[in-house]
Amino acid sequence: MPRRAHPDRSFTAETIAIGSELLIGGRSDSNSLHIAEALGALGIELRFKSIVGDDRADIMAAVKTAVARAAVVIMTGGLGPTVDDCTREAVAVVTGRRLARRKEALDGMQARLAQWGRSPNKGQLRQALIPSGAAVVPNPVGSAPGFWLTWTGAIIVALPGVPREMEAMLESSVVPLLRSRRQGAAGGPRPMARLVFHTWGLPEADVDAKLAGLVPARWNVDLGLLASPLGVLVSLTTNPRSRVLPDDLATLADGVRARLGEWLYAEGRETMEEVVGRLLAKRQLTVATAESCTGGLIGHRLTQVPGSSAYLDRGVICYSNRAKTELLGVPPALIETHGAVSAEVAAAMADGVRTRAGVSVGVSVTGIAGPGGATPTKPVGLVYIGLNAGDGTIITHEHRFHGDRSTIKQRASQAALDLLRRWALRREAG
Amino acid sequence: MPRRAHPDRSFTAETIAIGSELLIGGRSDSNSLHIAEALGALGIELRFKSIVGDDRADIMAAVKTAVARAAVVIMTGGLGPTVDDCTREAVAVVTGRRLARRKEALDGMQARLAQWGRSPNKGQLRQALIPSGAAVVPNPVGSAPGFWLTWTGAIIVALPGVPREMEAMLESSVVPLLRSRRQGAAGGPRPMARLVFHTWGLPEADVDAKLAGLVPARWNVDLGLLASPLGVLVSLTTNPRSRVLPDDLATLADGVRARLGEWLYAEGRETMEEVVGRLLAKRQLTVATAESCTGGLIGHRLTQVPGSSAYLDRGVICYSNRAKTELLGVPPALIETHGAVSAEVAAAMADGVRTRAGVSVGVSVTGIAGPGGATPTKPVGLVYIGLNAGDGTIITHEHRFHGDRSTIKQRASQAALDLLRRWALRREAG
Repeated sequence: MPRRAHPDRSFTAETIAIGSELLIGGRSDSNSLHIAEALGALGIELRFKSIVGDDRADIMAAVKTAVARAAVVIMTGGLGPTVDDCTREAVAVVTGRRLARRKEALDGMQARLAQWGRSPNKGQLRQALIPSGAAVVPNPVGSAPGFWLTWTGAIIVALPGVPREMEAMLESSVVPLLRSRRQGAAGGPRPMARLVFHTWGLPEADVDAKLAGLVPARWNVDLGLLASPLGVLVSLTTNPRSRVLPDDLATLADGVRARLGEWLYAEGRETMEEVVGRLLAKRQLTVATAESCTGGLIGHRLTQVPGSSAYLDRGVICYSNRAKTELLGVPPALIETHGAVSAEVAAAMADGVRTRAGVSVGVSVTGIAGPGGATPTKPVGLVYIGLNAGDGTIITHEHRFHGDRSTIKQRASQAALDLLRRWALRREAG
Repeated sequence: MPRRAHPDRSFTAETIAIGSELLIGGRSDSNSLHIAEALGALGIELRFKSIVGDDRADIMAAVKTAVARAAVVIMTGGLGPTVDDCTREAVAVVTGRRLARRKEALDGMQARLAQWGRSPNKGQLRQALIPSGAAVVPNPVGSAPGFWLTWTGAIIVALPGVPREMEAMLESSVVPLLRSRRQGAAGGPRPMARLVFHTWGLPEADVDAKLAGLVPARWNVDLGLLASPLGVLVSLTTNPRSRVLPDDLATLADGVRARLGEWLYAEGRETMEEVVGRLLAKRQLTVATAESCTGGLIGHRLTQVPGSSAYLDRGVICYSNRAKTELLGVPPALIETHGAVSAEVAAAMADGVRTRAGVSVGVSVTGIAGPGGATPTKPVGLVYIGLNAGDGTIITHEHRFHGDRSTIKQRASQAALDLLRRWALRREAG
């Protein structure tokens, strides 16, 4: 078969995500992002991602293309019990193998189903069909086994598309397999390293300016910036051609931290709500929220963190003016004079929720999420954030956000949590 | 160059999304989902999606693969002002064209930047480089122009990766271009049609059983099922080989509706919160929420809908027991006797929030989102939903959800909104 000569093919990978819903069904492939990270840690660079529907010929075409340019091909999806699921058949045909029911695949599936008090039905029995010469990849979480085989010098791995199952199998079987193969290979590149830093409150151009000249060009480390409604993400990524030592990368990371200062709110996979929760829990502080335009998003985010009941006492979603008065004691005259979207009302909301809940700190948001509700002086995107702490600290911030309703809500929630984070950083243990 | 013979190549498409952040940066390619829909409406089937990094050789490889199997290739990304952005160069090299600054591309960019009071910098001038023989695709939203050209019988279109710009250019230039090409072609398949139905409350196997035998095999219409934390999605999709008439598809859709009954909560792009909002607004009903384990997610979802202030008065996030008592009047003895996670407390929360807010209906959720908080009799995933309407209607439902904390919150919010939907459906105009 044709093969494109690629200088680094031995350490490159491709993912193939299978499923018509990924083509036209409005669902994104999230598995490949997880795989990219796991492979990168092994020094294997994910260079291509492909997505195909539940079509045997198209899957076969994708496999042929992939093995011609990558040494590791990880397929996800198409291993289910229905006739639509044709990854098994496609791999068998393209690699010239026979499909047969494999005892160990069947045993594993039966053992798992037995835990749920069930036995395999006809469709599930199809899931025990494995191409000859392939090794079974056990599924510790679900019923569908995977498999792997080598063909024309490439390793082809087939895993289920359900993220929880895919991730478990990647970790328990595929990573050890690839690690052992990597160790067998002579020389070769180092593991890739990737450090991620999350900032909030600075435009992308300002983050760029702060980091200018930080990374020496000869180090072959990529400095990446990526803007989203939740801020600008900064990444330092080595590639297999990088020749930096771990200490060098640590020095670069320190440089990023020093230059970004308090604009840097988290690193790696940590989220804003996790950082806020960690700071509040450590200092034994408690919080209550008063949300108008965010409608509960701040509470939702805070409660995404396990254990958040230790510091979140309550939240109030005061969408109507009457609710602001009844639940938070905001004087009707204040709303009348300044409008519900004003620094004065934000301050009164934060004060009201803190006092009534008896917590360390109250945080509030009022704004115009749009698309309606704007006035000549108050445009869509105008948002006031308030913070009130028992020690007399009263802060209000005015923001003018751009974007659609959902984006404005996201940004407003991020601004409120960031204000809480900065306050908690300064606050002595309660 | 090699070309795979494909029976339908003339009506198939491939997307190539370009950007290293899409490979390893944790960002999914959402543009291709939008493109798939636009192409489907033209009768052009998106069969493959590829994702590559900001690497000229890899982009070139992806273009070569794509034109060998698709007649329409839509590239997104890599048209920015930095040296990382190499889509222009890759297309020029692979198709053997010369890159030169194009006056009309420059004029459009200057006109747009002038609106913002700016003029093109050096990087932006690179964005006016267009392969010879290609047509410029104007960007009505941002500064980066796109282009299109034909090569070896395929149309190659290059658009920016920013979704707002990509979508505007797709609609204003690419769809008209492809429509005119389609009309020029002899015969050819019909536009694809796709109908989507959203269900909640039935396991996938039960949805499958209800729909068994609905679609005649000879019609060549795909019946798809897709489970997610928000329920099971049902789709009817024609393909270019389908020979059903619009009336036949309407008959199938009626069959789906009849068989799914009230389990069907929405169709197409409509969300549960939009359906609930529409029903409440139409009947002039008002609602207040009392959330414990969902932490504000129900309020957040309801307020994602523009105009929701017409029916959402307030919400209470009562994470602590004290908040349940103070904000909702739940008797401490009730919590003591039955536990905070109980049908009795859910009912008291719904009653309390409805009465205090003076709204038509109160909805409540209390449960154990995990991973901690379980007891021998109350496992993670145990959730009680309550509804109280002024007319004496009192409903509580017990659910036992599986999944992680985020999934349990999602499912609990969906169950609460669905209960509200079913109640509003039965309720006469207020």
